[in-house]
Amino acid sequence: MCQLLGMNCNVPTDIVFSFTGFATRGGGTDTHNDGWGIAFFEGAGVRHFVDHLPAVDSPVAELIKTWPIKSKNVIAHIRRATQGHVALENCHPFVRELWGRYWVFAHNGDLKDFHPQLSGPYRPVGTTDSERAFCYLLQQLGKRFGDQMPPLEELTAAMAVLTQEINRFGVFNMMLSNGSALFAHCATNLYYIVRQFPFAKARLSDEDMTVDFSKVTTPQDRVAIIVTEPLTTNETWIRLAPGELKVFVDGQPD
Amino acid sequence: MCQLLGMNCNVPTDIVFSFTGFATRGGGTDTHNDGWGIAFFEGAGVRHFVDHLPAVDSPVAELIKTWPIKSKNVIAHIRRATQGHVALENCHPFVRELWGRYWVFAHNGDLKDFHPQLSGPYRPVGTTDSERAFCYLLQQLGKRFGDQMPPLEELTAAMAVLTQEINRFGVFNMMLSNGSALFAHCATNLYYIVRQFPFAKARLSDEDMTVDFSKVTTPQDRVAIIVTEPLTTNETWIRLAPGELKVFVDGQPD
Repeated sequence: MCQLLGMNCNVPTDIVFSFTGFATRGGGTDTHNDGWGIAFFEGAGVRHFVDHLPAVDSPVAELIKTWPIKSKNVIAHIRRATQGHVALENCHPFVRELWGRYWVFAHNGDLKDFHPQLSGPYRPVGTTDSERAFCYLLQQLGKRFGDQMPPLEELTAAMAVLTQEINRFGVFNMMLSNGSALFAHCATNLYYIVRQFPFAKARLSDEDMTVDFSKVTTPQDRVAIIVTEPLTTNETWIRLAPGELKVFVDGQPD
Repeated sequence: MCQLLGMNCNVPTDIVFSFTGFATRGGGTDTHNDGWGIAFFEGAGVRHFVDHLPAVDSPVAELIKTWPIKSKNVIAHIRRATQGHVALENCHPFVRELWGRYWVFAHNGDLKDFHPQLSGPYRPVGTTDSERAFCYLLQQLGKRFGDQMPPLEELTAAMAVLTQEINRFGVFNMMLSNGSALFAHCATNLYYIVRQFPFAKARLSDEDMTVDFSKVTTPQDRVAIIVTEPLTTNETWIRLAPGELKVFVDGQPD
């Protein structure tokens, strides 16, 4: 199993605070040693960092913790290998293009005997069940809607059907973003929080670190954080129900 | 116009020396201020770094200069915008998947009125002529060879035809790699050198830096460096002819 972290905001925001607690689980407070990755949308572009080193030992993770990259949509992942060996091509998140946009995907869980027919343009490069699921998602979305991205409502309805279908093969906690919306499907464990005015202090559970968000935000800011295990000890995280698909836009659940 | 740097080797090698000289051209010794990027194959996986900041000011470029990532195939690019504004999605190299492998592409030059029909699975995310050319290349290779990557000889023959076709629209110096071969097409400026036993010293032209390769190599190592302008002052660089396509495998031209 692995751990997932997502952020969706209405203004570009840095993820240094949340990532610092999260990255500690990659070989520090938890045993997710088999690589990690993070992808930041910046406009239509994506900054994509993956590493097969544990996040606590990775020079790239160190860079992310000190360099406040601002983004409206971020997905991060730390890996404990279940399927697929420890290699760069098996590190999440994965990035592919559909409808002239990048899509970023990461998965927590394990899919048994999941070998969908991938006859279209998306083929896995690595050997994980997760990348097969991502390729299948994009292939089916492309088949279903053709040349053009549909309105969000139709996309969400299609995602609900597809995530349910894939979830039958095992555990499919996942996050997918196209740079504007962030889809989160809960199989077993996913929690979220929306931080907005009036902002308060938050204390990390994995590191001795507190931030006073009222000092680093404007009253208009709204930030949703989605994660497999709550990151802070003094905030109320909302748990998604098993089987629930939630879509976040501009920092709030739709 | 922009600058390109490629490396193709028979054993994973770091590019710190060459990249240090090259990155200085991104706002230092030259005026390529509009972003930069580098992609390293590591097995089937790719580490992909892009930044819209000038390479001389970029914290990621600093990381690349100090962290010896070892790779058999690397493509780097520093950009001076001709088409497409300064934005992350317009920074080279670009990465896409075909036949279950990643492909990395970067372009130096300018294509006029190049708007090929992109009806297949590859659509540009940004607004550059370069990304359109990359999408067209992959679309046409996919159409030509179907589901499977052909032997290198057939791939090279197809690449020769396609690069000539695209070059008719302007200047198409480009590099493309699938992680084993590196294709280099020269329209106007491309030089290469093969470093192999017996190794000697090399001195950068853009920085006061010398390396003695005999101290950091084994007699079996072979490294081809391909670049738009020679990087060192004391080595003999071979210039590609206009219209020439060269494919490098295991550190030597095929």
